[in-house]
Amino acid sequence: MKNNTHLPDDSALNVMDGIASSHDGMSATVRKRFVKKDRTIPVEELTEKISNGSRLHLAKGITLLESITPADKIAGQQVLLNLLPKTGNSIRIGITGVPGAGKSTFIEAFGLMLANAGHHVAVLAIDPSSTITGGSILGDKTRMEELARHPGAFIRPSPTAGTLGGVHKKSRETMLLCEAAGYDVILIETVGVGQSETVVRGMVDFFMLLVLTGAGDELQGMKKGIMELVDGIIVHKADGDNLKLAKKTVREYRQLLHFLQPASLGWTPTSLPVSSIKLTGLEEVWETVLAFKATMDTNTFWAERRQSQTKDWFRSMINDRLIDTFFAEPGRKEQVAELEQALLKGDITVAGAVERLFLG
Amino acid sequence: MKNNTHLPDDSALNVMDGIASSHDGMSATVRKRFVKKDRTIPVEELTEKISNGSRLHLAKGITLLESITPADKIAGQQVLLNLLPKTGNSIRIGITGVPGAGKSTFIEAFGLMLANAGHHVAVLAIDPSSTITGGSILGDKTRMEELARHPGAFIRPSPTAGTLGGVHKKSRETMLLCEAAGYDVILIETVGVGQSETVVRGMVDFFMLLVLTGAGDELQGMKKGIMELVDGIIVHKADGDNLKLAKKTVREYRQLLHFLQPASLGWTPTSLPVSSIKLTGLEEVWETVLAFKATMDTNTFWAERRQSQTKDWFRSMINDRLIDTFFAEPGRKEQVAELEQALLKGDITVAGAVERLFLG
Repeated sequence: MKNNTHLPDDSALNVMDGIASSHDGMSATVRKRFVKKDRTIPVEELTEKISNGSRLHLAKGITLLESITPADKIAGQQVLLNLLPKTGNSIRIGITGVPGAGKSTFIEAFGLMLANAGHHVAVLAIDPSSTITGGSILGDKTRMEELARHPGAFIRPSPTAGTLGGVHKKSRETMLLCEAAGYDVILIETVGVGQSETVVRGMVDFFMLLVLTGAGDELQGMKKGIMELVDGIIVHKADGDNLKLAKKTVREYRQLLHFLQPASLGWTPTSLPVSSIKLTGLEEVWETVLAFKATMDTNTFWAERRQSQTKDWFRSMINDRLIDTFFAEPGRKEQVAELEQALLKGDITVAGAVERLFLG
Repeated sequence: MKNNTHLPDDSALNVMDGIASSHDGMSATVRKRFVKKDRTIPVEELTEKISNGSRLHLAKGITLLESITPADKIAGQQVLLNLLPKTGNSIRIGITGVPGAGKSTFIEAFGLMLANAGHHVAVLAIDPSSTITGGSILGDKTRMEELARHPGAFIRPSPTAGTLGGVHKKSRETMLLCEAAGYDVILIETVGVGQSETVVRGMVDFFMLLVLTGAGDELQGMKKGIMELVDGIIVHKADGDNLKLAKKTVREYRQLLHFLQPASLGWTPTSLPVSSIKLTGLEEVWETVLAFKATMDTNTFWAERRQSQTKDWFRSMINDRLIDTFFAEPGRKEQVAELEQALLKGDITVAGAVERLFLG
């Protein structure tokens, strides 16, 4: 599993990581000063330190990749390019679920189990509203306190700036940097805003959905087709009075999954009951992930999926760039809005509207 | 339902329609001659004749819209623009299903029932491999013989040229032209190649899936998430020895649909058994469509969906144009292919590859 034998050598810097992980709540001034300090580290040094597992430098590298300053972006890309040969050696797990399903509690329990077993666990979020930051109501205090203090774990909240497309790009690069720093399990949380589930499915090997008891009913708020994106469904809070119902729900989901097309060729998605309070079912989840990897390895789907994910990422970035450039032209948005109004009134055909955009 | 009181006045031209509908099998010379003859009709005359329900002129108008000749395209767009005020007054029904589910048999039986009840029924296909043309093995002979001969029906095979995006555009325009010609029920068939189901879902009001007995198992070949795109599932060939099993399958699908997010706000998709041989269940399908329309009308979802479909169509055509233009530049495809190889080898980052494409 783990092919980086080093252990993080900077546990004394955990407090610093805590700052790096939660600086979204800082004033702009404090943040600016913090970022400024990063810039003084040369690319070569940053590359080496990240490669040696320094969480402080990993956080700094990620900050460079997330920066909107051209110089930072160039430096960040250079660090990433240097580290590319060290990437890819992790199991990438996506975690989604309805609000209230207990995603952060699960990630804390699951991550701690893995970290205590010697794994290096990185936790990332794909969207600004994810629970990793604890939400604005709770301020900077992360909900995954114990995991955040563990020397084998690294927690990074989602970049708050930019479109989902931008966050997507940054989260992928963050994932690669974490792998280069020796993290062999990457947990990526998403709350399912807009297209984020599809984005995360396109980034990970194993995609799991957290639900509560009562199959189906609570999926109303989820993205359509979510059931056919997942490799496993965890029925969470399977403890106490809820245990019996949770087991029934697991059976219902297994039956349902049988009817649907599997997300990963050759793997029949399954459902498992988990309690993050009683710490039951967590090992079974990990065993399922390992069984999944073994299956995927035999049919070469693992490597092929990662290759096709990289290609899709490239294509979608080309697409985004073309659209962004087009709509960034002065007056373009207004022009499109006017044409849309004309379309809805029946004053113009769609083909005519497109011609008007492109031929003058 | 029907707000065009005229009846097709050109039933004597059915044979001509037959030619127009099946000229894909003609030699290029014959086809060219046929198209050439169309050009002589002025736009105003074509507009008026289509508006009066002439199937011959409707077929000619569609041919203009499908043409790749600039002059034809301009004429076709002008006819469409003239007729836009008369469009939109139909129920648009999408029909998809696994191969062998009997889509053409169903469309023939369902279409005949509606046409005999006084509806004007247009049948279109979204992809070249659809059953409407009868497939190349059967040559030009359409499978929907009786419906094709009915004076209240118009059958148009899919344009064979171009990408799905192009076919998509043409099929939408064809649909509008049929509406302007007084067709109040549009049936759009798709066989589910690639993205075609999503495309059809984005064109129609009611989207139905045809399946055979044995819920789930035969959905393996379908697009992921298809179950959550549909407003109704028809279990076909519900007759003879198969009837009991079909009814059981209907119950299974109803249970399954309960778990999934509905495709149309406020409408719980249902499942119905149908036999196109015994002609049972067809009226129930139509009643379901009407009940669906009544539900959608009360919550304004019907009109809103059509508006958002038109906007999406416009956006996707802008997107397609940008991509097409970009990849049409000399050497572009080769450059992207080279960068993809470098990406997979880890010689370059995705962001770096994109920069190289856009900054030289």
